[in-house]
Amino acid sequence: MSTQYQCCIYVTLRPSVLDPAGTAVRSGLKQLGYESVEDVRIGKYIELTLSAEDESDAREQLDRMCDQLLANPVIENYRFDIKPLVRG
Amino acid sequence: MSTQYQCCIYVTLRPSVLDPAGTAVRSGLKQLGYESVEDVRIGKYIELTLSAEDESDAREQLDRMCDQLLANPVIENYRFDIKPLVRG
Repeated sequence: MSTQYQCCIYVTLRPSVLDPAGTAVRSGLKQLGYESVEDVRIGKYIELTLSAEDESDAREQLDRMCDQLLANPVIENYRFDIKPLVRG
Repeated sequence: MSTQYQCCIYVTLRPSVLDPAGTAVRSGLKQLGYESVEDVRIGKYIELTLSAEDESDAREQLDRMCDQLLANPVIENYRFDIKPLVRG
């Protein structure tokens, strides 16, 4: 029987890749008076649900999804959290 | 003395707001064979560092940053995690 999992995926630019959007946000925050803000990096946060046999099957599916579609492995890293879905 | 904090901010669309990008990703994943994927929602993930007197000061600064610039409170929710920065 398969279980539904709630998955949160964090896609971030690799540290060696420039992040112009992050630089723009940092400069915007400084103009608003937040002088101490540094190292702003902007990534993607993806939530989804999927069915899998068990947690390791879910992790394997997510790894493949990230490599194929959700992240660009040349310039981005990803990580994810999963937990069994409890319908309210 | 002020402390540096590493902050992770998650900006998500409010549940009542349509997410066309999420729908497109869901349909792309289904075409790749991930039939069980549902409820794809795409948000932003922002990392930054800031200096603050203490954790509650850091949280207050972040709340204001999110309301003013990082999130659009009309259509987005946000939450964040912070922890004191330990330089490697």
